[in-house]
Amino acid sequence: MNLVDIKAKLDERRPGHSLPQALYNDAAMFDFDMAAIYGRSWLMAGFTCELPETGSYSALKVGRWPILLVRDKTGTIRAFHNSCRHRGAMLCKEGTGRSPRLVCPYHRWTYNLDGSLLSAARMPEDFDNAEHGLREVRIEVVSGVIYICLADNPPPFEAFRREMEALLAPHDLAHAKVAHVETLTEYANWKLVLENGRECYHCQASHPELARTFPVSASAYFEFGEADHAAQYEARMQELGLPLGPVGEDWWQAIRFPLNPGMQSMSMDGQPLVAKPMVAAGNGDVGSLRWALEPHSFAHAVGDHLFFFSAMPIGPRETLVTAKWLVHQDAVEGVDYDRAALVHLWNTTNLQDKELAENNQQGVDSPGYTPAPIRPRPKFWWCALSTGTAPRHGNTWMKSWAKKPRRRRT
Amino acid sequence: MNLVDIKAKLDERRPGHSLPQALYNDAAMFDFDMAAIYGRSWLMAGFTCELPETGSYSALKVGRWPILLVRDKTGTIRAFHNSCRHRGAMLCKEGTGRSPRLVCPYHRWTYNLDGSLLSAARMPEDFDNAEHGLREVRIEVVSGVIYICLADNPPPFEAFRREMEALLAPHDLAHAKVAHVETLTEYANWKLVLENGRECYHCQASHPELARTFPVSASAYFEFGEADHAAQYEARMQELGLPLGPVGEDWWQAIRFPLNPGMQSMSMDGQPLVAKPMVAAGNGDVGSLRWALEPHSFAHAVGDHLFFFSAMPIGPRETLVTAKWLVHQDAVEGVDYDRAALVHLWNTTNLQDKELAENNQQGVDSPGYTPAPIRPRPKFWWCALSTGTAPRHGNTWMKSWAKKPRRRRT
Amino acid sequence: MNLVDIKAKLDERRPGHSLPQALYNDAAMFDFDMAAIYGRSWLMAGFTCELPETGSYSALKVGRWPILLVRDKTGTIRAFHNSCRHRGAMLCKEGTGRSPRLVCPYHRWTYNLDGSLLSAARMPEDFDNAEHGLREVRIEVVSGVIYICLADNPPPFEAFRREMEALLAPHDLAHAKVAHVETLTEYANWKLVLENGRECYHCQASHPELARTFPVSASAYFEFGEADHAAQYEARMQELGLPLGPVGEDWWQAIRFPLNPGMQSMSMDGQPLVAKPMVAAGNGDVGSLRWALEPHSFAHAVGDHLFFFSAMPIGPRETLVTAKWLVHQDAVEGVDYDRAALVHLWNTTNLQDKELAENNQQGVDSPGYTPAPIRPRPKFWWCALSTGTAPRHGNTWMKSWAKKPRRRRT
Repeated sequence: MNLVDIKAKLDERRPGHSLPQALYNDAAMFDFDMAAIYGRSWLMAGFTCELPETGSYSALKVGRWPILLVRDKTGTIRAFHNSCRHRGAMLCKEGTGRSPRLVCPYHRWTYNLDGSLLSAARMPEDFDNAEHGLREVRIEVVSGVIYICLADNPPPFEAFRREMEALLAPHDLAHAKVAHVETLTEYANWKLVLENGRECYHCQASHPELARTFPVSASAYFEFGEADHAAQYEARMQELGLPLGPVGEDWWQAIRFPLNPGMQSMSMDGQPLVAKPMVAAGNGDVGSLRWALEPHSFAHAVGDHLFFFSAMPIGPRETLVTAKWLVHQDAVEGVDYDRAALVHLWNTTNLQDKELAENNQQGVDSPGYTPAPIRPRPKFWWCALSTGTAPRHGNTWMKSWAKKPRRRRT
Repeated sequence: MNLVDIKAKLDERRPGHSLPQALYNDAAMFDFDMAAIYGRSWLMAGFTCELPETGSYSALKVGRWPILLVRDKTGTIRAFHNSCRHRGAMLCKEGTGRSPRLVCPYHRWTYNLDGSLLSAARMPEDFDNAEHGLREVRIEVVSGVIYICLADNPPPFEAFRREMEALLAPHDLAHAKVAHVETLTEYANWKLVLENGRECYHCQASHPELARTFPVSASAYFEFGEADHAAQYEARMQELGLPLGPVGEDWWQAIRFPLNPGMQSMSMDGQPLVAKPMVAAGNGDVGSLRWALEPHSFAHAVGDHLFFFSAMPIGPRETLVTAKWLVHQDAVEGVDYDRAALVHLWNTTNLQDKELAENNQQGVDSPGYTPAPIRPRPKFWWCALSTGTAPRHGNTWMKSWAKKPRRRRT
Repeated sequence: MNLVDIKAKLDERRPGHSLPQALYNDAAMFDFDMAAIYGRSWLMAGFTCELPETGSYSALKVGRWPILLVRDKTGTIRAFHNSCRHRGAMLCKEGTGRSPRLVCPYHRWTYNLDGSLLSAARMPEDFDNAEHGLREVRIEVVSGVIYICLADNPPPFEAFRREMEALLAPHDLAHAKVAHVETLTEYANWKLVLENGRECYHCQASHPELARTFPVSASAYFEFGEADHAAQYEARMQELGLPLGPVGEDWWQAIRFPLNPGMQSMSMDGQPLVAKPMVAAGNGDVGSLRWALEPHSFAHAVGDHLFFFSAMPIGPRETLVTAKWLVHQDAVEGVDYDRAALVHLWNTTNLQDKELAENNQQGVDSPGYTPAPIRPRPKFWWCALSTGTAPRHGNTWMKSWAKKPRRRRT
């Protein structure tokens, strides 16, 4: 497929329908996705607590693209393409670490923490270090969460920052730490992985563990029907001064919502998994703050921990999922929390979703596959991606939703 | 390669020669093969005994295309694209099973056994179940064998049905069962795998085990020279009322032929591998009924068992072979037959052929490879594919052969 | 990318800079590399001692292309495409062996050692054996080393032969044997593997073991500054009658140079690894003769052994490295040398380089990668490839170097 073919396939999309087959399995379409979507969107890249000190760094990949986050001498976290300006070698392997300077393992070109080139041995006299600093990547930090965008002109960030600062403030990520990181390869197109992550139509049947605490059957906008615990929750949060949302734009959504009656955390029994809470307010019994970025991530912040999910495309039928669990920095493993218990629910849920997404991919590859109507009004407001509306091309559901004032924070 | 290049490569084919290199290793050519050949041909998909009851199903793949066979309430076996009409998920994983209805594992859309949509939870009121039944695939059943074709206008099936019913009748597949299934990945183009399976020029040297019972050195049309056991066999089959063939059209061939003198079954010693025969006539000593479908399969039905071979393309240099062994349904494993002994000969032969095909692929990838003349008149009549004539484009050898009346069943 | 795109990418190259990204990771570019570079260059294919007798053969691959070297009845070593003229099957699997004739494992077509077809069973009477001999590949043998070129019009070979005969004569490869062969897959483009192998800017930091004996810090043209051991070495070699070079053309370079002071061999301690030397002159203390062919190989011949390195492309991001160690044919393993000790230094170095090349590949895949200036005048004269000048398109550094008469052998 060339760009004309790709355009034709994009034009084939019908509102309220799943996508044309090629958008789920074609190699040229995949390359287009990377350039047009992953190359232009804000992405959740990690947490400031992963870079606690001057010289702390975190290296990750967006697909095949290596990115480096570094805390410089002023305490500012910067993002660079993780590629030496000499021969292009990666400066740091994936993962976290700390170094007073960034030294390329290949020929020892050495960069300051602000990305400027400090020294390049044996280069000629007319070589200008100032022209060979690391290439910067756009970065924003909001309440302890790091966002990057590989485009020169990223989408507007102001509304997101304003809303998320208010929503995340009680979760005190400045005093968090990463308790566990897990990666999982799903042999499915990233859109199938994300569509799965965005809708909960499948949750009741496929995620019995998640359904214990998560309101998988709540109606749209978290109207809980006759049950009054939603109203009680809303009143309690108001009393604690915790904003609820929902808020959002086409590339992000956020909401604070109540868990099932009697449940304080997303765990097997609804009880906290960490003795030391992250949220002081309400003794940590504050439901879950969920926020999601198109195209790749979501997070659930409950009172005692935070769960983060990110999907990075590897190929047309392969996606790498990274999951992280954060707890209070003073929580001690083996004392305040058991790591296996902490990760059990989401690891279980992610493996169930891997099975569903891979099965979905195999079925979508069928010549009998045709885009079909999906539920036109998503049950949950975060089902936007499921509508078949491509990320970053507007979201009609979100727009109609925006007219409904209830629960909207302003 | 685009379609113009592909056309040019097809035009390069010379009668009586092996194929141009790109037909054995090019990715675009492979996609064309799938659409033009596997997408339009009748394929052997299994046996009715694999779906014994209402609700029995068998899920298989044609390349990446998932297909579902189901026995409905009327006892009819139907074929569907194994892809839910909602999001496209596979309804059933590969293999066999039984279910009163077909329930998608993703969102529980539920289909009747005839493919009609019974229920789809939470869909809007204007959603019409009748428009969302499973997409059917053309299917034909002949004497216990299931054939499918993914095209809307499949090749004519009547002659095949008529001839195969007569030939297969004595084998009583209505009372058979599958004793063993084996899969094997060959790192070679499907055409190399099939060319290998179609000719026996290599058998004498490469398949000593097979050569014990199989007449690898017989002349064309199974004329066995001075030996009179072929004439004796023909007379005996006539006495038993068993038709011999050979019969065929461009996409299939069938023949009943004698094994080597003194041999009753295709086994290491020529003796039956199963105490309870499938064929009553002649106490099961009836030679072998071999039939083959272009592009992918062949079967040998001897008195005590049936061996089935199917090759499905995975990529330009990768093919999945599935082998099945059938025995009488009353034959008890460990009593009437030993499973390891049953499968030994063909597993041995298939592994030898895997070695040959993979070696062939590596050599065909050579810049020194050029299409070269192969034996212009195949020794065995089933060598058709070896002539370099593409499947489904006519078979000149078959046509000339058709003029020879000897042994032809009419 | 089509040829127009490829041309545009080639035109983007800037002298003294690393290459445009696509030249390191694009699939179409890779195919072009194979056809335009590997398909047209002289390649080091092995050593005559690997084919000691009539009927000895050695099978290797250039990428996916199988090549067969055979010593015929006259003692001449011939090169063929390792692909039977019948169906294209490989005649011999990779590795070495001996056979009185070349018999295809598929249908037993049998070739004489000179490549002519001796017999093809069951072919029709008008089949002409003379038209179906093996396709020959251009071959040259110089002082025990075998070179092949897959093109019909290979680059001029005369100067290379003349210079290498003189340089290699003292190493007596006619009485050598292969002591060990090692293969290594590097997940990096072949250009990154070779650029790494061509420059020693990285050696001081990354190869501490190699740096013990190899002059990683010597200035260009092996001018060793104030140290006089280079002058002493030059005088000593002159006394022994051993030419030094450097010599070369655009596709090859060769030089005999001194190891670090006090070092006689490339080993962990600088002492010989083999008790029986290959070079009689100077008791084997003759520095190292290094020669290299673009695009894929280099060798170091020291007094007691010879190390050979060859990189063959497998895919855009995958390269197969083959390493061989030669010793005197009379050296007995376990008596005159310890195999593990013999291979330790270069296996260690190769694994270090694998790490560097794979890291480089990941970084080059970054959207932040841009071709950047590398050291404009390579420290070592064999750094040619590092200049970003494509192999076979001239080498400006070599041309300027040729004007410097010092150490040039004429």
